[in-house]
Amino acid sequence: MKTISENVCFGGMQGVYSHASSATKCDMTFGLFLPLEARDGPVPVLWYLSGLTCTHDNAMTKAGAQIWAAEHGIALVFPDTSPRGENIADDDAYDLGQGAGFYVNATENPWSPHFQMFDYITRDLHELLFAEFALDPNRQAITGHSMGGHGALTLAMNLPGRFRSVSAFSPICHPTTSDWGRKQLGAYLGDDKSKWAAYDATLLMRNKGFDGPILTDTGTNDQFLDLLMPETFAEACIKRRQQATLRMQPGYDHSYFFVQSFMEDHVAFHAEALWV
Amino acid sequence: MKTISENVCFGGMQGVYSHASSATKCDMTFGLFLPLEARDGPVPVLWYLSGLTCTHDNAMTKAGAQIWAAEHGIALVFPDTSPRGENIADDDAYDLGQGAGFYVNATENPWSPHFQMFDYITRDLHELLFAEFALDPNRQAITGHSMGGHGALTLAMNLPGRFRSVSAFSPICHPTTSDWGRKQLGAYLGDDKSKWAAYDATLLMRNKGFDGPILTDTGTNDQFLDLLMPETFAEACIKRRQQATLRMQPGYDHSYFFVQSFMEDHVAFHAEALWV
Repeated sequence: MKTISENVCFGGMQGVYSHASSATKCDMTFGLFLPLEARDGPVPVLWYLSGLTCTHDNAMTKAGAQIWAAEHGIALVFPDTSPRGENIADDDAYDLGQGAGFYVNATENPWSPHFQMFDYITRDLHELLFAEFALDPNRQAITGHSMGGHGALTLAMNLPGRFRSVSAFSPICHPTTSDWGRKQLGAYLGDDKSKWAAYDATLLMRNKGFDGPILTDTGTNDQFLDLLMPETFAEACIKRRQQATLRMQPGYDHSYFFVQSFMEDHVAFHAEALWV
Repeated sequence: MKTISENVCFGGMQGVYSHASSATKCDMTFGLFLPLEARDGPVPVLWYLSGLTCTHDNAMTKAGAQIWAAEHGIALVFPDTSPRGENIADDDAYDLGQGAGFYVNATENPWSPHFQMFDYITRDLHELLFAEFALDPNRQAITGHSMGGHGALTLAMNLPGRFRSVSAFSPICHPTTSDWGRKQLGAYLGDDKSKWAAYDATLLMRNKGFDGPILTDTGTNDQFLDLLMPETFAEACIKRRQQATLRMQPGYDHSYFFVQSFMEDHVAFHAEALWV
């Protein structure tokens, strides 16, 4: 593991590190905010998965999460959204390839050699974090924005017991029936749509649900509302009688100005689940 | 005036606008955060001047100021740091020309035709803002970071009565004797150093002072501490018996992770002066 930068922030430390991943077979970069309390022993951790085109850096600099993580004594992890490098497959489109890993394990060429983001997040980065930093593996929660909201919801439901709580900002809720999803799942997983179901929050809610609380926020003026399809996830939650708070926020759009406006609520929501 | 973007943020509106400036003789872009209260009438305004290499965008997305401005019902203005354009003078160095206006009125070629940032901020943008938005010209305050901290302190002392309070994050305090200053003041104002004094916070404090409260924060691990020279400003403040709170913050550096860590304090400091 290599330290790229460390900056004191709200009394804690905002670090950026890189490490070799066996899942993605390349070096991966991530951000980690450690609150002051990490000096005294392991602290709970909130994962933040980012959206299309983002690196580890976007939310780390624009989501305004550190202040609340410092207040609640919680660490924040900001992973990258895909493998990266000149010798790694990519696409000219903003929504496929590098910057658009969709948190799946690809099975199709040319993506399968490196695009193993589900394994990267849940295995490689997971193991590294708890080996190298003062973090408590028994107190994890997860959130994300847009494609990262999709990632947070699907990881949480696919790994029962791993995360105590899950939240999302304007998540992609039903990728198997959306233009934000069909293209990518087809490219990464092939034409057999039965393989796509493990990466669709609405289908996972219908079939499995989540053993803990859920919070989602979506703006009523989100310019991508038709692609996100929060109505399908809401319907699935309610039919399942899932513990959930699903909020539509008046006037807000898809930007980080929206995300930062509700970050305090999300971190407090996770803190309640992590500190009991 | 042209609207470039508007995003709902903390119940208010983060806008980006452009307009033609007669001072800089080019189109200028600025950010403006209006709190919800601006719907009901003019609100106080806090100017935020940015540092070297920044545009209007950096602090608007990374300083974490909107949340506190929303809480206190204060507007935020984020001006650009220089004129910009292909036909406008520039320099290959990051610290001269475009992105490095230093908030002065240049008198020397090739800078003087466009680099009139003092007049741009204090006259053109000032007039536009109070004509176009629900802002109260009698309740203004100013802050900034690094070169923008220099701008905030020098504008505040040069315009008695304009700003009720001034603060700064890691300001350049004594540019006439620093490598962050001599080069730029020489280029923009020429070799006659008597003309530089109007743009030096330490000299202005020695000669004029400020009729209101001052707050500054600087990190003890600031990598540019020798260029900022906060000790000269502190000495001048204390010798003058100036009302001031001058803080050195342990472990912090020069980054926006530092700025955001103390933004709550700065906005609260200005709110106290603006709302009495």
